[in-house]
Amino acid sequence: MEQKKFSDNVVLIEKYLRRVDWIIRKKGREILNDINITDPQFIALQHIINSNQLTIGELSQKMSLACSTITDLIDRMEKSGLVIREKDEQDKRVVRLVAQQKGHDIVNQVLEKRREYLAEKLSGLSEGDKDLLLKNLKYLYEVMTDETNRED
Amino acid sequence: MEQKKFSDNVVLIEKYLRRVDWIIRKKGREILNDINITDPQFIALQHIINSNQLTIGELSQKMSLACSTITDLIDRMEKSGLVIREKDEQDKRVVRLVAQQKGHDIVNQVLEKRREYLAEKLSGLSEGDKDLLLKNLKYLYEVMTDETNRED
Repeated sequence: MEQKKFSDNVVLIEKYLRRVDWIIRKKGREILNDINITDPQFIALQHIINSNQLTIGELSQKMSLACSTITDLIDRMEKSGLVIREKDEQDKRVVRLVAQQKGHDIVNQVLEKRREYLAEKLSGLSEGDKDLLLKNLKYLYEVMTDETNRED
Repeated sequence: MEQKKFSDNVVLIEKYLRRVDWIIRKKGREILNDINITDPQFIALQHIINSNQLTIGELSQKMSLACSTITDLIDRMEKSGLVIREKDEQDKRVVRLVAQQKGHDIVNQVLEKRREYLAEKLSGLSEGDKDLLLKNLKYLYEVMTDETNRED
Protein backbone atom coordinates (compact mmCIF):
# COMPACT_ATOMS: atom_id res chain seq x y z
CA MET A 1 0.00 0.00 0.00
CA GLU A 2 1.72 3.20 -1.05
CA GLN A 3 1.49 6.05 1.42
CA LYS A 4 1.02 9.77 0.73
CA LYS A 5 -1.28 9.13 -2.23
CA PHE A 6 -3.85 11.22 -0.36
CA SER A 7 -3.40 14.18 1.98
CA ASP A 8 -3.36 13.44 5.71
CA ASN A 9 -6.69 15.25 5.97
CA VAL A 10 -8.43 12.81 3.64
CA VAL A 11 -6.96 9.76 5.37
CA LEU A 12 -8.02 11.05 8.79
CA ILE A 13 -11.48 12.28 7.73
CA GLU A 14 -12.18 8.82 6.23
CA LYS A 15 -10.96 7.17 9.42
CA TYR A 16 -12.99 9.31 11.82
CA LEU A 17 -16.15 9.21 9.67
CA ARG A 18 -15.95 5.41 9.58
CA ARG A 19 -15.33 5.03 13.31
CA VAL A 20 -17.82 7.66 14.44
CA ASP A 21 -20.55 6.10 12.31
CA TRP A 22 -19.63 2.62 13.53
CA ILE A 23 -19.93 3.69 17.18
CA ILE A 24 -23.26 5.47 16.55
CA ARG A 25 -24.62 2.39 14.74
CA LYS A 26 -23.51 0.17 17.61
CA LYS A 27 -25.19 2.50 20.12
CA GLY A 28 -28.39 2.70 18.09
CA ARG A 29 -28.58 -1.07 17.88
CA GLU A 30 -28.11 -1.63 21.60
CA ILE A 31 -31.84 -1.18 21.79
CA LEU A 32 -32.23 -4.34 19.68
CA ASN A 33 -31.01 -6.51 22.57
CA ASP A 34 -33.92 -5.38 24.72
CA ILE A 35 -36.49 -6.17 22.05
CA ASN A 36 -35.03 -9.51 21.01
CA ILE A 37 -34.26 -8.89 17.37
CA THR A 38 -30.96 -10.04 15.84
CA ASP A 39 -28.68 -8.00 13.58
CA PRO A 40 -29.58 -9.89 10.36
CA GLN A 41 -33.28 -9.44 11.23
CA PHE A 42 -32.70 -5.70 11.63
CA ILE A 43 -30.76 -5.48 8.35
CA ALA A 44 -33.54 -7.44 6.59
CA LEU A 45 -36.13 -5.13 8.14
CA GLN A 46 -34.33 -2.06 6.79
CA HIS A 47 -34.16 -3.58 3.29
CA ILE A 48 -37.87 -4.48 3.43
CA ILE A 49 -38.79 -0.94 4.48
CA ASN A 50 -36.47 0.85 2.04
CA SER A 51 -37.20 -1.30 -1.03
CA ASN A 52 -40.94 -1.68 -0.82
CA GLN A 53 -42.45 -5.08 -1.68
CA LEU A 54 -39.32 -7.24 -1.82
CA THR A 55 -39.59 -10.95 -2.57
CA ILE A 56 -37.58 -13.57 -0.60
CA GLY A 57 -35.35 -14.01 -3.67
CA GLU A 58 -34.62 -10.29 -3.92
CA LEU A 59 -33.88 -10.04 -0.19
CA SER A 60 -31.63 -13.09 -0.44
CA GLN A 61 -29.67 -11.32 -3.19
CA LYS A 62 -29.45 -8.05 -1.27
CA MET A 63 -28.11 -9.81 1.82
CA SER A 64 -25.99 -12.36 -0.10
CA LEU A 65 -27.48 -15.17 1.98
CA ALA A 66 -29.07 -18.44 0.78
CA CYS A 67 -32.86 -18.40 0.23
CA SER A 68 -33.20 -21.09 2.92
CA THR A 69 -31.41 -18.85 5.47
CA ILE A 70 -33.64 -15.91 4.48
CA THR A 71 -36.78 -18.08 4.70
CA ASP A 72 -35.87 -19.04 8.29
CA LEU A 73 -35.17 -15.38 9.10
CA ILE A 74 -38.53 -14.26 7.69
CA ASP A 75 -40.38 -17.08 9.51
CA ARG A 76 -39.02 -15.74 12.79
CA MET A 77 -39.73 -12.12 11.86
CA GLU A 78 -43.30 -13.02 10.88
CA LYS A 79 -43.81 -14.76 14.23
CA SER A 80 -42.59 -11.63 16.06
CA GLY A 81 -45.01 -9.47 14.08
CA LEU A 82 -42.32 -7.45 12.28
CA VAL A 83 -43.28 -8.38 8.71
CA ILE A 84 -45.93 -10.30 6.78
CA ARG A 85 -45.88 -12.24 3.51
CA GLU A 86 -48.43 -10.90 1.04
CA LYS A 87 -49.49 -12.26 -2.34
CA ASP A 88 -48.71 -9.97 -5.25
CA GLU A 89 -51.90 -8.38 -6.61
CA GLN A 90 -50.92 -8.91 -10.27
CA ASP A 91 -49.44 -12.36 -9.91
CA LYS A 92 -50.76 -14.48 -7.01
CA ARG A 93 -47.79 -16.87 -7.27
CA VAL A 94 -45.41 -14.12 -6.18
CA VAL A 95 -45.06 -13.47 -2.45
CA ARG A 96 -43.91 -10.04 -1.26
CA LEU A 97 -42.58 -8.96 2.14
CA VAL A 98 -44.30 -6.08 3.88
CA ALA A 99 -43.13 -4.44 7.12
CA GLN A 100 -45.72 -4.18 9.89
CA GLN A 101 -46.17 -1.18 12.20
CA LYS A 102 -44.02 -2.92 14.84
CA GLY A 103 -41.19 -3.18 12.28
CA HIS A 104 -41.40 0.52 11.43
CA ASP A 105 -41.49 1.39 15.14
CA ILE A 106 -38.27 -0.53 15.79
CA VAL A 107 -36.38 1.22 12.98
CA ASN A 108 -37.61 4.56 14.35
CA GLN A 109 -36.55 3.64 17.87
CA VAL A 110 -33.04 2.85 16.61
CA LEU A 111 -32.87 6.22 14.82
CA GLU A 112 -34.10 7.96 17.97
CA LYS A 113 -31.45 6.21 20.04
CA ARG A 114 -28.78 7.31 17.54
CA ARG A 115 -29.96 10.93 17.83
CA GLU A 116 -30.04 10.76 21.62
CA TYR A 117 -26.49 9.41 21.76
CA LEU A 118 -25.20 11.94 19.24
CA ALA A 119 -26.94 14.86 21.00
CA GLU A 120 -25.13 13.92 24.21
CA LYS A 121 -21.76 13.68 22.46
CA LEU A 122 -22.24 16.89 20.47
CA SER A 123 -23.07 18.87 23.58
CA GLY A 124 -19.41 19.81 24.06
CA LEU A 125 -19.19 21.54 20.68
CA SER A 126 -20.05 25.23 20.29
CA GLU A 127 -23.11 26.14 18.21
CA GLY A 128 -20.75 27.55 15.58
CA ASP A 129 -18.81 24.29 15.35
CA LYS A 130 -22.04 22.28 15.10
CA ASP A 131 -23.22 24.54 12.28
CA LEU A 132 -19.94 24.06 10.42
CA LEU A 133 -19.98 20.30 10.93
CA LEU A 134 -23.52 20.19 9.58
CA LYS A 135 -22.66 22.47 6.67
CA ASN A 136 -19.71 20.33 5.61
CA LEU A 137 -21.52 17.00 6.01
CA LYS A 138 -24.47 18.36 4.04
CA TYR A 139 -22.08 19.52 1.33
CA LEU A 140 -20.49 16.05 1.20
CA TYR A 141 -23.90 14.36 1.00
CA GLU A 142 -24.96 16.66 -1.82
CA VAL A 143 -21.89 16.12 -3.97
CA MET A 144 -22.11 12.38 -3.29
CA THR A 145 -25.73 12.14 -4.36
CA ASP A 146 -25.28 14.14 -7.55
CA GLU A 147 -24.49 10.88 -9.27
CA THR A 148 -25.99 8.32 -6.88
CA ASN A 149 -29.67 7.77 -6.25
CA ARG A 150 -30.84 10.09 -3.53
CA GLU A 151 -32.99 8.41 -0.89
CA ASP A 152 -35.21 10.15 1.62
CA MET B 1 -42.40 9.70 17.76
CA GLU B 2 -42.36 13.12 19.33
CA GLN B 3 -40.63 15.83 17.35
CA LYS B 4 -38.40 18.67 18.61
CA LYS B 5 -36.86 16.52 21.31
CA PHE B 6 -33.50 17.35 19.74
CA SER B 7 -32.29 20.48 17.97
CA ASP B 8 -32.52 20.50 14.17
CA ASN B 9 -28.73 20.45 14.06
CA VAL B 10 -28.54 17.10 15.86
CA VAL B 11 -31.25 15.53 13.70
CA LEU B 12 -29.52 16.67 10.52
CA ILE B 13 -25.97 15.82 11.61
CA GLU B 14 -27.17 12.29 12.46
CA LYS B 15 -28.91 12.02 9.08
CA TYR B 16 -25.95 13.23 7.00
CA LEU B 17 -23.37 11.22 8.96
CA ARG B 18 -25.46 8.08 8.40
CA ARG B 19 -26.00 8.69 4.69
CA VAL B 20 -22.48 9.89 3.91
CA ASP B 21 -20.98 6.84 5.62
CA TRP B 22 -23.46 4.55 3.86
CA ILE B 23 -22.49 5.92 0.44
CA ILE B 24 -18.75 5.68 1.21
CA ARG B 25 -19.20 2.09 2.40
CA LYS B 26 -21.13 1.21 -0.76
CA LYS B 27 -18.40 2.79 -2.91
CA GLY B 28 -15.62 1.03 -1.01
CA ARG B 29 -17.33 -2.31 -1.44
CA GLU B 30 -17.86 -1.94 -5.19
CA ILE B 31 -14.39 -3.39 -5.47
CA LEU B 32 -15.73 -6.62 -3.93
CA ASN B 33 -17.74 -7.40 -7.08
CA ASP B 34 -14.54 -7.54 -9.13
CA ILE B 35 -12.86 -9.93 -6.75
CA ASN B 36 -15.83 -12.22 -6.21
CA ILE B 37 -16.35 -11.91 -2.47
CA THR B 38 -19.84 -11.51 -1.00
CA ASP B 39 -20.91 -9.01 1.66
CA PRO B 40 -21.20 -11.60 4.47
CA GLN B 41 -17.74 -12.91 3.52
CA PHE B 42 -16.37 -9.35 3.77
CA ILE B 43 -18.08 -8.75 7.12
CA ALA B 44 -16.72 -12.09 8.41
CA LEU B 45 -13.26 -11.14 7.16
CA GLN B 46 -13.36 -7.85 9.07
CA HIS B 47 -14.41 -9.65 12.28
CA ILE B 48 -11.63 -12.23 11.83
CA ILE B 49 -9.02 -9.50 11.33
CA ASN B 50 -10.26 -7.21 14.14
CA SER B 51 -10.83 -9.91 16.78
CA ASN B 52 -7.77 -12.04 16.35
CA GLN B 53 -8.18 -15.84 16.56
CA LEU B 54 -11.98 -16.16 16.50
CA THR B 55 -13.63 -19.58 16.59
CA ILE B 56 -16.56 -20.50 14.32
CA GLY B 57 -18.86 -20.26 17.36
CA GLU B 58 -17.65 -16.77 18.26
CA LEU B 59 -18.00 -15.58 14.66
CA SER B 60 -21.49 -17.09 14.50
CA GLN B 61 -22.43 -15.07 17.59
CA LYS B 62 -20.90 -11.85 16.26
CA MET B 63 -22.82 -12.19 12.99
CA SER B 64 -26.01 -13.64 14.54
CA LEU B 65 -26.01 -16.44 11.98
CA ALA B 66 -26.29 -20.19 12.55
CA CYS B 67 -23.03 -22.12 12.92
CA SER B 68 -23.95 -24.15 9.80
CA THR B 69 -24.27 -20.94 7.74
CA ILE B 70 -20.93 -19.70 9.09
CA THR B 71 -19.28 -23.06 8.39
CA ASP B 72 -20.37 -22.85 4.72
CA LEU B 73 -19.14 -19.25 4.56
CA ILE B 74 -15.72 -20.19 5.99
CA ASP B 75 -15.45 -23.22 3.65
CA ARG B 76 -15.81 -20.88 0.69
CA MET B 77 -13.44 -18.30 2.18
CA GLU B 78 -10.83 -20.98 2.85
CA LYS B 79 -11.11 -22.17 -0.78
CA SER B 80 -10.54 -18.59 -2.01
CA GLY B 81 -7.45 -18.27 0.18
CA LEU B 82 -8.87 -15.53 2.42
CA VAL B 83 -8.65 -17.37 5.75
CA ILE B 84 -7.38 -20.64 7.21
CA ARG B 85 -8.54 -22.80 10.11
CA GLU B 86 -5.77 -23.32 12.67
CA LYS B 87 -5.65 -25.59 15.72
CA ASP B 88 -5.34 -23.69 18.99
CA GLU B 89 -1.85 -24.12 20.46
CA GLN B 90 -3.11 -24.70 24.01
CA ASP B 91 -6.11 -26.86 23.16
CA LYS B 92 -5.86 -28.84 19.91
CA ARG B 93 -9.64 -29.47 19.89
CA VAL B 94 -10.32 -25.74 19.38
CA VAL B 95 -10.11 -24.40 15.82
CA ARG B 96 -9.36 -20.72 15.26
CA LEU B 97 -9.84 -18.60 12.14
CA VAL B 98 -6.83 -16.71 10.83
CA ALA B 99 -6.91 -14.21 7.96
CA GLN B 100 -4.41 -14.81 5.15
CA GLN B 101 -2.42 -12.10 3.35
CA LYS B 102 -5.03 -12.08 0.56
CA GLY B 103 -7.73 -11.32 3.15
CA HIS B 104 -5.74 -8.42 4.61
CA ASP B 105 -5.07 -7.11 1.09
CA ILE B 106 -8.78 -7.04 0.27
CA VAL B 107 -9.67 -5.07 3.42
CA ASN B 108 -6.87 -2.62 2.59
CA GLN B 109 -8.10 -2.28 -1.00
CA VAL B 110 -11.59 -1.41 0.26
CA LEU B 111 -10.16 1.23 2.60
CA GLU B 112 -8.06 2.64 -0.25
CA LYS B 113 -11.14 2.82 -2.48
CA ARG B 114 -13.03 4.66 0.29
CA ARG B 115 -10.17 7.20 0.58
CA GLU B 116 -10.02 7.66 -3.17
CA TYR B 117 -13.74 8.33 -3.40
CA LEU B 118 -13.74 10.69 -0.42
CA ALA B 119 -10.69 12.60 -1.73
CA GLU B 120 -12.58 13.24 -4.96
CA LYS B 121 -15.71 14.43 -3.12
CA LEU B 122 -13.77 16.56 -0.64
CA SER B 123 -11.92 18.38 -3.40
CA GLY B 124 -14.59 21.09 -3.54
CA LEU B 125 -14.08 22.08 0.12
CA SER B 126 -11.51 24.71 1.09
CA GLU B 127 -8.50 23.61 3.14
CA GLY B 128 -9.98 25.53 6.08
CA ASP B 129 -13.29 23.67 5.84
CA LYS B 130 -11.52 20.32 5.58
CA ASP B 131 -9.47 21.19 8.68
CA LEU B 132 -12.64 22.08 10.60
CA LEU B 133 -14.47 18.95 9.44
CA LEU B 134 -11.52 16.86 10.58
CA LYS B 135 -11.24 18.74 13.88
CA ASN B 136 -14.93 18.20 14.71
CA LEU B 137 -15.00 14.55 13.64
CA LYS B 138 -11.86 13.90 15.68
CA TYR B 139 -13.50 15.61 18.66
CA LEU B 140 -16.60 13.41 18.27
CA TYR B 141 -14.49 10.26 18.01
CA GLU B 142 -12.56 11.20 21.12
CA VAL B 143 -15.59 11.91 23.30
CA MET B 144 -17.23 8.72 21.99
CA THR B 145 -14.25 6.54 22.83
CA ASP B 146 -13.79 7.90 26.32
CA GLU B 147 -16.19 5.20 27.45
CA THR B 148 -16.10 2.73 24.56
CA ASN B 149 -13.18 0.52 23.61
CA ARG B 150 -10.88 2.38 21.31
CA GLU B 151 -9.70 0.33 18.31
CA ASP B 152 -6.81 1.18 16.02
